[in-house]
Amino acid sequence: MTFLPSGRVVEARRGETILEAAGRGGVFLAGPCGGRQACGKCRVRVADGTVRTEPSLHACPGDIERGWVLACHAVPEGDVRVEIPPESRGPSGPLEASGSAELRRRPAFDPGPLPYLAGDPLFPQSPLATRAFCVLPEPEGADAVSDLDRVIRGLRESRGLDGIEAGIEAVRTLPGGLREKGFAFTVTLAKRGPRSAEILSVDPGDLSGANWGAAVDLGTTNVALHLLELGEGRTVGTAGVPNGQARFGADVITRVLHAGRPGGLVELQEAAAADINRCLASACREAGVPPGEVTCVQVAANPIMTQILLRVDPSNLRRAPFAATANAFAPVLAADLGIRIHPRGRVHAAPGVSSYVGGDTTAGVAACGMAVRDEISLLVDLGTNGEMVLGNREWLACTSCSVGPAFEGSGISCGVRACPGAVEEAEVGDRGETARLRTVGDAPPCGICGSGLIDLFAGLLDAGVVDRAGRLQADAAPSRVRRGPEGLEYVVSPGPGRGLFLTQPDLDNLLRSKAAVYAASMLLVRRMGFEFDRVDRIYVAGGFGNRLDVEKAVRIGLLPDQPREKFVWIGNSSLAGAKMLLRYDAARAHAEEVAAKMAYVELSGDNAYTEEFVSALFLPHTDLARFPSAGKNAGPPPR
Amino acid sequence: MTFLPSGRVVEARRGETILEAAGRGGVFLAGPCGGRQACGKCRVRVADGTVRTEPSLHACPGDIERGWVLACHAVPEGDVRVEIPPESRGPSGPLEASGSAELRRRPAFDPGPLPYLAGDPLFPQSPLATRAFCVLPEPEGADAVSDLDRVIRGLRESRGLDGIEAGIEAVRTLPGGLREKGFAFTVTLAKRGPRSAEILSVDPGDLSGANWGAAVDLGTTNVALHLLELGEGRTVGTAGVPNGQARFGADVITRVLHAGRPGGLVELQEAAAADINRCLASACREAGVPPGEVTCVQVAANPIMTQILLRVDPSNLRRAPFAATANAFAPVLAADLGIRIHPRGRVHAAPGVSSYVGGDTTAGVAACGMAVRDEISLLVDLGTNGEMVLGNREWLACTSCSVGPAFEGSGISCGVRACPGAVEEAEVGDRGETARLRTVGDAPPCGICGSGLIDLFAGLLDAGVVDRAGRLQADAAPSRVRRGPEGLEYVVSPGPGRGLFLTQPDLDNLLRSKAAVYAASMLLVRRMGFEFDRVDRIYVAGGFGNRLDVEKAVRIGLLPDQPREKFVWIGNSSLAGAKMLLRYDAARAHAEEVAAKMAYVELSGDNAYTEEFVSALFLPHTDLARFPSAGKNAGPPPR
Repeated sequence: MTFLPSGRVVEARRGETILEAAGRGGVFLAGPCGGRQACGKCRVRVADGTVRTEPSLHACPGDIERGWVLACHAVPEGDVRVEIPPESRGPSGPLEASGSAELRRRPAFDPGPLPYLAGDPLFPQSPLATRAFCVLPEPEGADAVSDLDRVIRGLRESRGLDGIEAGIEAVRTLPGGLREKGFAFTVTLAKRGPRSAEILSVDPGDLSGANWGAAVDLGTTNVALHLLELGEGRTVGTAGVPNGQARFGADVITRVLHAGRPGGLVELQEAAAADINRCLASACREAGVPPGEVTCVQVAANPIMTQILLRVDPSNLRRAPFAATANAFAPVLAADLGIRIHPRGRVHAAPGVSSYVGGDTTAGVAACGMAVRDEISLLVDLGTNGEMVLGNREWLACTSCSVGPAFEGSGISCGVRACPGAVEEAEVGDRGETARLRTVGDAPPCGICGSGLIDLFAGLLDAGVVDRAGRLQADAAPSRVRRGPEGLEYVVSPGPGRGLFLTQPDLDNLLRSKAAVYAASMLLVRRMGFEFDRVDRIYVAGGFGNRLDVEKAVRIGLLPDQPREKFVWIGNSSLAGAKMLLRYDAARAHAEEVAAKMAYVELSGDNAYTEEFVSALFLPHTDLARFPSAGKNAGPPPR
Repeated sequence: MTFLPSGRVVEARRGETILEAAGRGGVFLAGPCGGRQACGKCRVRVADGTVRTEPSLHACPGDIERGWVLACHAVPEGDVRVEIPPESRGPSGPLEASGSAELRRRPAFDPGPLPYLAGDPLFPQSPLATRAFCVLPEPEGADAVSDLDRVIRGLRESRGLDGIEAGIEAVRTLPGGLREKGFAFTVTLAKRGPRSAEILSVDPGDLSGANWGAAVDLGTTNVALHLLELGEGRTVGTAGVPNGQARFGADVITRVLHAGRPGGLVELQEAAAADINRCLASACREAGVPPGEVTCVQVAANPIMTQILLRVDPSNLRRAPFAATANAFAPVLAADLGIRIHPRGRVHAAPGVSSYVGGDTTAGVAACGMAVRDEISLLVDLGTNGEMVLGNREWLACTSCSVGPAFEGSGISCGVRACPGAVEEAEVGDRGETARLRTVGDAPPCGICGSGLIDLFAGLLDAGVVDRAGRLQADAAPSRVRRGPEGLEYVVSPGPGRGLFLTQPDLDNLLRSKAAVYAASMLLVRRMGFEFDRVDRIYVAGGFGNRLDVEKAVRIGLLPDQPREKFVWIGNSSLAGAKMLLRYDAARAHAEEVAAKMAYVELSGDNAYTEEFVSALFLPHTDLARFPSAGKNAGPPPR
């Protein structure tokens, strides 16, 4: 089976649908409903060959006659050529186009020296894996200790390391690794404590300079990876892809249901591993690093993504009483997960708190350093799930809410993740008749990412193109507001084709997303006996762009109307935290402390949350008194 | 391909020889030279079908015409039926005939309560794996800790266990294991220290009574296994097979060379695993135990067998300067080694000392308890390699020598391991004209095992049928001494066929074996500044029978001529030690201490050893002054 326009060839298995074959072959094809023919987003055109399919709500007999079928419900018969239309291709275009460009352009958030990183004199960097080059005298009759004892003795004498262990796989590398270059060899060590370690492998020659690690943010919607040189901790490559599990469902619930079907968990796990492998391959290519010399991976993810990646059935995470199988996992052999790095390298998952709050949040707290400071901070992490953490060095409380993937560019007609060409800044002018755009990497626009969506939403409100309920006005900006298949839409950029636009359902999505974030933040702060005024610092995190215009985020009521100097935009905090966990013992210990200390505040099923959410379904809010600066020009709420 | 007489069918792979196919299919076929056409022991008859072969030293064109070929040098062309003649079938007859009968008949050696087993109040038995049945309250909203934390908390509260860990494979069993029977479940725990443990798996329901462990003596020539119920430590099943690696070579050197060929190590490892699996299947059948409920395996083996079983290249063990890859190995997942027990069960190898002295020896020392006593003991372990240990609670010294497999019934025309039907006692009378025999299990005689060989050799000497050089006398016992293809031979039991007999080469083998044992024991004692007189106790160990007639062993000069009450026959000490390691923390700690404490005395390449060996090539010895009681009727050494 050949997919167009990429030309990618995938050998379809017997009885497999086009959607399944595409997923297996790494061809992205939208499928938010999980193959239930419910969303119609996986429409493709059969250009050559025949498929077995049936008419459905989203593919009428006429469509099928013209070759348009739902990929989730069409099985190739013989060789076929399948064209994927732009709207089914997923937000990012070809998967290989990594998100490197934008990520390098602006340095990642750096919290500066954090108190918990003090000390640890033996390993100032203390990465998860280290490589030590050793030259030992060759064994002779008088000193015929075992290979393993020789290596352990060498490490103790030259590096003061004690308590060194080795599993059988490492032992198997000893005879060749030591002798191939005459007892000049590299030991790859996984850190355990400050002075103890486990031997992962012994390789001939000096590879001590070839030690790379990958930090991964495995998000529900997008996957981001940074490749680090572990000697000095420099980031040498970056990559990102949309989460390939999307073909089993856009939201986590559908995926958890899929995991419960026979073979479903394995499919999801393989998709997760494939995403990480693609990012690894891309980042390694960028940096000129052999993937086999990547010795460790630190993942930060929510509980469901973590359990899927580790092939642990996630069903109970979404079935009352919502018990995680485990919050902390021992390191897992990458090879066991199908992740292609050093054959003995390990994957580490950041520790989670509960079935709702995972390693992505503890990593985020570690990254911003809020739990080592005296001031009261609020961390607002805008993922597909939103997580909010309030506290300081003494205490931490957190909550979570369903935000939806809108800010990550998913579920929005022209939404994309923050890849090159994504509209990341926008200024609406002239009563909505003009929109100045800036894209990531100044590339030709390919879609709109989260920060661009916020700018546009705020701009449309200020220009009167949408009212305070977020509704497009038929009589506003006549050159830009048009009628489309789903009602009114605003043209962000006219050409080619239908151009970039925002539909009313897109704006409704954004409205619900921002309302959820505000309501959850608000209630968390209240539950802990505070008001926003008493919060000293607000860290805003998310993977949806390189910058966030806080002014505009407050304008639409996504963030509370607080003095602007309180806000710190920290970008992808899960990824930043994963990088710190990759590099520092002390950060790992800190993340564990954070996980142990954090109290979870349950909001789901809480009437107060519903009320707050409904009140926030206006721009910026129903209660303008809460938004004195942002709401000053706003009119009354529309009927 | 069908093997006769068993009727076993093995699908031959393209280009595979009959010997290779037989080995893969679990059909024992002699092959001591490792398939180099050197020994001619793998002769088989092609009863039907054609094979591709060529004449050689051991298969002349006439032989081939009559269907006799060397299995190591014949490739089937299409379907064939191959008859294995008795002499190529290996010492044991059909593999399934386990050595259970004889092992149950007489209780295994029991050293009684040993000082190092005192203490350890929490786990009086402290087996390598335990199974705990737990019933926990089902999680509810107010107590939604993770599954893992719930189990760990339960184990801490109910059993006082701390420091419990769980690898990812165990975590994967949690969701189903806990919920399938409503949080009534069994945790299988691998012990780490006295109060800490690792969770291997969580299974629904009460399996706490289903906890079995296997102790394995993986010898060069034979493999023996005992199945233990781990609650009280009872032995519930036993089994033994000849070591299937024999098809790659009878001696370890040939096998080590084979390990160096492409794919060779994997073949050897698979053969080792297959032997253990066969023993497990047989012992489990005997005891009515599902192999999947065997939770741990403790192996005691020499360094080469240990490394082969763990798939660690053994080449350097036999290449100067003879470095073991490791002496102690972390437990290995049985599934990783292809050993079919509980999917998360582990294989533990007893710790070794050096490239020559392995876990079989430390296990033997632990079994006899010599290293917890004040008296000076000598342990003589008669395996294919002989190991001798001298010492007490303060110090230990050991050496090893090549004994050959004669005492284990291999390399002797009618030799067998101590399986049912093996001649284990013999009394030669009437100047050699009569030989009264007793067989294991009083079964019809099928061959002669080690203890029977010693009896016969001593009897023939006393009867004057062999002279002091071990040479058969043409003019002695006319009804029993006959001329065979290899010169003179002594008929032990007349029919059917050629009956049971000893050839001159058989006796030469035995002479060399006993000389090696005596010479090494003697020199070890001398090197430590002692004489045999100063040794308080002599433990004699080996897998070659249920009893050893010490008098006769001294008579042929295998053991020193010391007061008979000093000798203690302890049977298979490696197996006995493996059973103790399986059951007791303290025994494991003791074996590690023994390994750390033991000094190796090198004898190979030592002129004194050569001299001692040559002097011992007489019965009982060249120097009769050393054998005052045994040698009192002996004449002068023959010319």
